[in-house]
Amino acid sequence: MEIRLTSGETLSISEGENIYQAIKGHGIYLVASCGGKGICGKCRVKIVEGRHKVIAYGKLEQKEKDAGFVLACQTIPEEDLMVEIPEESRLVVGDKIAVSRSRDLFELLHSFKADIAPVVKRIVLSLPHPTIHDNISDLERLKRALEEKGIKGMRFSHGFVSSMARSLRDADWKVSLAYTDGPEAIFISPVEEGKDRYGVAVDIGTTTVVVYLVNLTDGRLIDVGSTYNSQLRYGDDVITRIIYATEGGGLRELRDAVVSDINDILAPLIERQNIRSEEIESAVISGNTTMSHIFWGLDPASIREEPYIPTLNYFPLWRGGTAKLSINSQSPVYTVPCVASYVGGDIVAGVLASKMHRNTEIALFMDIGTNGEIAIGNNEWLMTAACSAGPCFEGSGIKHGMRATEGAIESVKIDPATFEPTLGVIGSVRPMGICGSGMIDAISEMFLCGVIDQKGKFIKELKTDRLREGEEGPEFVLYKGEGRDVVLTEVDIENILRAKAAIYAGVSLLLKEVGFTLSAIERVYIAGGFGNYLNVDRAIILGMLPDLPKEKFTFLGNTSIAGAYLCLLSEDMRKEAEEIASKMTYMELSVSRGFMNEYMSALFLPHTDITQFPTVSDLLSKKKP
Amino acid sequence: MEIRLTSGETLSISEGENIYQAIKGHGIYLVASCGGKGICGKCRVKIVEGRHKVIAYGKLEQKEKDAGFVLACQTIPEEDLMVEIPEESRLVVGDKIAVSRSRDLFELLHSFKADIAPVVKRIVLSLPHPTIHDNISDLERLKRALEEKGIKGMRFSHGFVSSMARSLRDADWKVSLAYTDGPEAIFISPVEEGKDRYGVAVDIGTTTVVVYLVNLTDGRLIDVGSTYNSQLRYGDDVITRIIYATEGGGLRELRDAVVSDINDILAPLIERQNIRSEEIESAVISGNTTMSHIFWGLDPASIREEPYIPTLNYFPLWRGGTAKLSINSQSPVYTVPCVASYVGGDIVAGVLASKMHRNTEIALFMDIGTNGEIAIGNNEWLMTAACSAGPCFEGSGIKHGMRATEGAIESVKIDPATFEPTLGVIGSVRPMGICGSGMIDAISEMFLCGVIDQKGKFIKELKTDRLREGEEGPEFVLYKGEGRDVVLTEVDIENILRAKAAIYAGVSLLLKEVGFTLSAIERVYIAGGFGNYLNVDRAIILGMLPDLPKEKFTFLGNTSIAGAYLCLLSEDMRKEAEEIASKMTYMELSVSRGFMNEYMSALFLPHTDITQFPTVSDLLSKKKP
Repeated sequence: MEIRLTSGETLSISEGENIYQAIKGHGIYLVASCGGKGICGKCRVKIVEGRHKVIAYGKLEQKEKDAGFVLACQTIPEEDLMVEIPEESRLVVGDKIAVSRSRDLFELLHSFKADIAPVVKRIVLSLPHPTIHDNISDLERLKRALEEKGIKGMRFSHGFVSSMARSLRDADWKVSLAYTDGPEAIFISPVEEGKDRYGVAVDIGTTTVVVYLVNLTDGRLIDVGSTYNSQLRYGDDVITRIIYATEGGGLRELRDAVVSDINDILAPLIERQNIRSEEIESAVISGNTTMSHIFWGLDPASIREEPYIPTLNYFPLWRGGTAKLSINSQSPVYTVPCVASYVGGDIVAGVLASKMHRNTEIALFMDIGTNGEIAIGNNEWLMTAACSAGPCFEGSGIKHGMRATEGAIESVKIDPATFEPTLGVIGSVRPMGICGSGMIDAISEMFLCGVIDQKGKFIKELKTDRLREGEEGPEFVLYKGEGRDVVLTEVDIENILRAKAAIYAGVSLLLKEVGFTLSAIERVYIAGGFGNYLNVDRAIILGMLPDLPKEKFTFLGNTSIAGAYLCLLSEDMRKEAEEIASKMTYMELSVSRGFMNEYMSALFLPHTDITQFPTVSDLLSKKKP
Repeated sequence: MEIRLTSGETLSISEGENIYQAIKGHGIYLVASCGGKGICGKCRVKIVEGRHKVIAYGKLEQKEKDAGFVLACQTIPEEDLMVEIPEESRLVVGDKIAVSRSRDLFELLHSFKADIAPVVKRIVLSLPHPTIHDNISDLERLKRALEEKGIKGMRFSHGFVSSMARSLRDADWKVSLAYTDGPEAIFISPVEEGKDRYGVAVDIGTTTVVVYLVNLTDGRLIDVGSTYNSQLRYGDDVITRIIYATEGGGLRELRDAVVSDINDILAPLIERQNIRSEEIESAVISGNTTMSHIFWGLDPASIREEPYIPTLNYFPLWRGGTAKLSINSQSPVYTVPCVASYVGGDIVAGVLASKMHRNTEIALFMDIGTNGEIAIGNNEWLMTAACSAGPCFEGSGIKHGMRATEGAIESVKIDPATFEPTLGVIGSVRPMGICGSGMIDAISEMFLCGVIDQKGKFIKELKTDRLREGEEGPEFVLYKGEGRDVVLTEVDIENILRAKAAIYAGVSLLLKEVGFTLSAIERVYIAGGFGNYLNVDRAIILGMLPDLPKEKFTFLGNTSIAGAYLCLLSEDMRKEAEEIASKMTYMELSVSRGFMNEYMSALFLPHTDITQFPTVSDLLSKKKP
């Protein structure tokens, strides 16, 4: 039988298999914190057409049932179906487009024309059994066999040799030796024909942690897991984490928190696939410079102090055991290289996944996550900067701000006559707060409707009870709840304008530095968990994104994990990542004289220099009577 | 003031210094388990001449005081003294001649014409302070400075980088970088002119553990400590230890035991010298193959099972932290390479210290410790074998056997007319047992006096009440005590003959293998804790040592620690040790067809083929009426 998705794909489904399993089998991941047991009620899909059997409706409400919604994990097709997957049912964390689909990832890898070559290499060795006349030590026997194959000077760690004698005998001297470049021996396993090999790609974001379980033999993404970074309890952004690590002596706590997150994600993934943790033979970590330092257990103090010096940009290969990851303790752990204190491996991975470093066209790469990082360049040059946008788009520092999860207002439309808002809410539930895309929508709408002025201040004389004086000053009521209203205050708007100004000023300054104008930019890549929800038109009205034709914008989702996936599978990709890191010229905006000017100009809606935003200018002139 | 020793040396002594301190300051170590506090009463010396002040007599008996004995640590000279150091007051463990004296060790090192070159090298680097315009990472800054000095491709471990940022700043960017060949960075310290550097050489014997604290700058032996190997509680010989490690699952326990021994010895040494453990920047370990494996935490199972395969002979450099030694956690730990399952690093170190591998003369090297290992050869070839002599010379398996400590009978003379024995006892106390040298004396005397026959059996019709029937059969009473007699039983004699036969058969077989006769041997080196107490003439009568002129024998003491000392200080020595290990041809006696014949012939006193022992033959013919 087949399932056709309204988004275009057609998937096959086996007799008796439920929709959740079938969709996942095709590399599309649904929100399902219970793992497909019918408990969490998050894998809602809408059956557009076709007979099907519903085992249970779980938490679904009557009106949802009436509208054709079912839980994917509790529904079995009885004939070909047409199914719609609502946006909010797709995996919430990160990567919505290319990157959450195994097939797309695989195509991405192949588009680089890169061979599959994980960090760990393998060689099969048939050693002669020791006898009284051939009684050299186990290690010499191994070295002799390696030399016969032309491999010399292999290094052997204590960890390797401590299990070597047993492994050789268990495998009856016919072994598969895992090793890394160096060369350095990693571990020995029995030779098993057709045995799969596994690795994990990890994106350590300031806010979220994403883990991909990957088949290293064929490059297939097997399963995905994600969670919020538990370091959040110590602070929302990298600065508060650094302070906690350094002044609070909490480095170990922070490290343990994120390592536990990774291990907690990994445990159900490998259990579902019936894999032992020892079979995971390599890991790639991608994160910003602070996250990478904390993962490595390195004091991040100098990152925060002028002149902002990271301890490392290029990280040596680490071991799974030393890193305390729940993988083979000898497994190499590769860290995507960083560029500077505020441009990390996540951006290098992102540029890699965007391929902008291979093309002749000049591209702008923007990663708007907990912070904002940008890169401009092509196959000849690359410039990068960090914008200190802060985490307000993730809800931090905004009165009713929240992350893009159930209950968040993600889109806002305001009636220019009545000032009544129409809200789009994630999960179609009662609004509980507002997320980044909602903020951008709300502010650009309020600006177009004349609720706020160019400076983001409320027009006091406006006749609407939506505008009121709150505890923190003037505020606009987006939602009047029984228990709790959802508002956007003037202070919130100020914070959001500061963030968008920092991003736009960064782009302007980088362009100036290389002597180009906006028109030179042929493509804009938007990365970050934010990515997909972002309405480009509204973000241009806000003055956050440059006023370029919409078709120049490409959403890439979580490029940090996509880049980590590429590095996990290919030696060429690791080399390219290192080339990108060394090739990128970092510009420290905080000490640049021009930055403050650009920033001040960008604090307006959309900008003091309206000629930079011709489409917004048009819109405004049309509005005016 | 000066102290003249009856053994020839003259030492200077400062005002107010005690004799113990003065002697130690000149590199001669006294038994003093309390570390010179007047408690243990072991540092007995005899004042032959000169005024002196005695602070306390401690445990000394009246007759000892009457004879001029004092405790060296409780006696302060008031004018130049003449002092006699009794044998038993010198450090009991190992090394009596060359090796216990700093000066001799130093001369040994220099006689090789080897430069001082510890495993850890140093380079001084002056790094420019980071600025906003020179804001590369700390590691890149370090690499840049190294490249300016022509050092490329340095490896950096996680352990190194995790303290790097702090160390660079604490030293204000002018640093001394410690690194090993590879090259691999070890740690960073501030540049301090004239600062001493320290290392430790460790001999892990089956029975004893010896630690040398060495100044790596000038090669001086600073202090010495030793103790019994706490693994003794799990068994006397390597076989029982292997069984305990493998079948008893006690590998970790055994490892922890010996590591604690080393750390326990080290603690007072560095405290006395006012050194922090972090300042000890390298260690060299020398031990037999089983001891090396256990120290490395490697399962020694295969060592015991035919075809007797060690896991490693050449050990990678380990780290102090991983090894759990109380030294700098980044310090390299070098292990002297082994040759085969029963010829270990202690023998390689011994051959190195003997220098036989450099000379053209053919030498026989014998290490008679808990086991017996032999090597024959010169600068062109080397053969080696292990004799499975067992630990009987250390008291194990002998009814009243004991180690060479206080109360042990170490020499025996028997009156051929009355059969009354005259005993030499360590510590001049009441005899409590008999040690190896006492056993050799007793048996050769009993043989010469006709108390036992060629097969080691008692002559039953002998008229003496010294010969009696004990619980385990016939026995000879060496000492009639009030509480406990000390005897040597026929079973004891059988065991000792087996041990000596194994050693002699090993020598015979190795010689046969290379096509030489005894006369080809130009020098015999005797190593091992046993070394010094051994009476060569008696050992020849016993048929343990070959019948060669006495002047061909040289006693070297504990050559395992001497070799470790050499390797600690010199790269050439480490290379030579590795050359020795790879050059030595190992002969597995246990499966050699000829061995059983040689062994059976050697079970007699001195040998079935008396022509191999002409001097004994002479002695016997003189005795006969």
